[in-house]
Amino acid sequence: MPIKRSGFITLLTDFGSRDHFAGVMKGVIAGIAPRARTVDISHEVPPFALRAARFLLAQSWPWFPKGTVHLVIVDPGVGTERRAIVVEAGGHLFVGPDNGVLSEPLRMKGSRARLLCNAKWRLNNISQTFHGRDVFAPAAAHLACGAPVSQAGPPVHDAMTVTTDSPLRTGKRYWQGEVVYVDRFGNLITNLPAADFPELKTRDFALRAGFAALTELKPNYAAGSPGEPVLLVGSSGCLEVAVNQGDAAKLLGLGLGSPVELEIR
Amino acid sequence: MPIKRSGFITLLTDFGSRDHFAGVMKGVIAGIAPRARTVDISHEVPPFALRAARFLLAQSWPWFPKGTVHLVIVDPGVGTERRAIVVEAGGHLFVGPDNGVLSEPLRMKGSRARLLCNAKWRLNNISQTFHGRDVFAPAAAHLACGAPVSQAGPPVHDAMTVTTDSPLRTGKRYWQGEVVYVDRFGNLITNLPAADFPELKTRDFALRAGFAALTELKPNYAAGSPGEPVLLVGSSGCLEVAVNQGDAAKLLGLGLGSPVELEIR
Amino acid sequence: MPIKRSGFITLLTDFGSRDHFAGVMKGVIAGIAPRARTVDISHEVPPFALRAARFLLAQSWPWFPKGTVHLVIVDPGVGTERRAIVVEAGGHLFVGPDNGVLSEPLRMKGSRARLLCNAKWRLNNISQTFHGRDVFAPAAAHLACGAPVSQAGPPVHDAMTVTTDSPLRTGKRYWQGEVVYVDRFGNLITNLPAADFPELKTRDFALRAGFAALTELKPNYAAGSPGEPVLLVGSSGCLEVAVNQGDAAKLLGLGLGSPVELEIR
Repeated sequence: MPIKRSGFITLLTDFGSRDHFAGVMKGVIAGIAPRARTVDISHEVPPFALRAARFLLAQSWPWFPKGTVHLVIVDPGVGTERRAIVVEAGGHLFVGPDNGVLSEPLRMKGSRARLLCNAKWRLNNISQTFHGRDVFAPAAAHLACGAPVSQAGPPVHDAMTVTTDSPLRTGKRYWQGEVVYVDRFGNLITNLPAADFPELKTRDFALRAGFAALTELKPNYAAGSPGEPVLLVGSSGCLEVAVNQGDAAKLLGLGLGSPVELEIR
Repeated sequence: MPIKRSGFITLLTDFGSRDHFAGVMKGVIAGIAPRARTVDISHEVPPFALRAARFLLAQSWPWFPKGTVHLVIVDPGVGTERRAIVVEAGGHLFVGPDNGVLSEPLRMKGSRARLLCNAKWRLNNISQTFHGRDVFAPAAAHLACGAPVSQAGPPVHDAMTVTTDSPLRTGKRYWQGEVVYVDRFGNLITNLPAADFPELKTRDFALRAGFAALTELKPNYAAGSPGEPVLLVGSSGCLEVAVNQGDAAKLLGLGLGSPVELEIR
Repeated sequence: MPIKRSGFITLLTDFGSRDHFAGVMKGVIAGIAPRARTVDISHEVPPFALRAARFLLAQSWPWFPKGTVHLVIVDPGVGTERRAIVVEAGGHLFVGPDNGVLSEPLRMKGSRARLLCNAKWRLNNISQTFHGRDVFAPAAAHLACGAPVSQAGPPVHDAMTVTTDSPLRTGKRYWQGEVVYVDRFGNLITNLPAADFPELKTRDFALRAGFAALTELKPNYAAGSPGEPVLLVGSSGCLEVAVNQGDAAKLLGLGLGSPVELEIR
């Protein structure tokens, strides 16, 4: 049962907004699929930060209509032998390099991956450094127009998935998590899903992040005194350390990849 | 007489462009109003800077076609009891939190505000920290599709307006103003509308900003010597302190909220 | 033979993304040409950096469909006597100030320039500081709708072109080039087109950039050891100095305008 296309293409890259790269990809898409509509998720993924890109993809794709094509390009291996793939999962299509950045859709039930090697879906001259323009954007445009996924190339059964995104249980009452994203406000978003820890509502606990030990879940940012670190369930559904009208990352000296520890007593 | 919709939705937030927040709102809008077209005004309002957001809104909305929906989200009180509202004014629609950020449309003649509480205009699960996605974006999408404003909720007659945006007359010949915005070039935009001071063309005057006392109106940026602070009427219609091919904010050590004084002799 | 319009308008400015300027231009375009679709190339051209804008324009316009209108506004002389022009070249239309920023389309074979002075293509009140809104955006919108270029104004035969963009031959075996762009990753893009130096594949050579002397062409970024400067042919077709997963501009202390020297032995 083919996925009916929504006509939307999202773009998530580490190309930056100040250069021409994202605009050029939109030009290539405009030439192939003039009615497709592009939506920027972010072009400010820190350079080569696959972990941050996986977080941003997980946070964004479910909010788009089914049949949307999601283009994800964080690609330190551009021009090498790393493969380009397309993944069908959850009624959406995902296009990007086979370097783990598409781990979430690949892990979804019923997902199917294919190699992206149809020569008709590429530009005629392929550079060694900008496959976003030469390989990925034209493929996304063809897919958004309704071209069957099966035309992309043969099935791939060993696409790269990263398995370290989940927290580690380090003791009967201890979990080791990490900061998987720092947003614009300096909020520290962890990989600890609140739904996995219903005990937080009924038992004593402590989340340790840097010098802070947070023992209470607050309902929203404003529930903390200005300047005070608070713990809450962020819009991602995961535990998040924030400072009311302040910057938790700066206050606590933490960043992407910093460890956090949860103890449930 | 209902406002005919233009199909455009503008977005003005402090969410930043590097995170997924703006893209996610566009995904929610795409699902409800696939033909609506979103235009970013800015997502780089300094965090929680309501004054800067009011300036950017005032500068941008009048240039859009009537029937445009303007989404303004600078919302330090997200998740608290602060209300969400929609305002009809000047043939446009404005959606945002009731925290003063919509003061300008609320002060316009004939403006009408309503509570935004129609459960059908919200997502099913409402987070405590991202009403842009869960409350405001879906409401804007329904409005852009032509849903009657009256369906939003009951009228609101006490929506919050801020009254301190105008300059203060501090003496017979003195006005105290402030820098209400610093643009990308470092130009210092004041809240002194040139049209309110026709004497500037006929009498001696001095505008004092930091260590500079400017006694002449220049026609454009290039009329100053490079490196020299100049006074001109900016594109906002207000007095603006600039440096030809330089950065007035850095040169004068001034920023958002810095006082300026106008003396007309 | 008039150019059939694609309906796309690209925007390339130094207005910044954090202010309202780009959004306001899109509002003006929406009012005149509601079906036209705008694509941002960049609004983060360094202020007044005509050279960087020329590079970004050259890199982006050829990837859009024919009949696209390209709006380029880096305009330190706004409000002075400098002219506004429209250029037809290569099946595309280019709109901007006559200050050299449109040099590339002006130099193309068969290009034709016209003054932009049709009063019906301007807003009623023209500010001294924001012609992007008052002059250029409405003209681009009319052109995108199919208005004949001949209505813009009379032909211009002396539009400003900059002739210093090419490398200089300084000796039998020496060429002096420069860094014409530094991208988000810190890659140093030169004005030395690889196609002009086929000897690089067959003879010894050295490209000197800061303290680095690069004597080998690498196929892609990943071909260098992390931290090591490498030379490659970038997506622009020009020689580019990069550091695998690093920042060549920082490592070598070079930036926009820095000289590079190529010696072919």
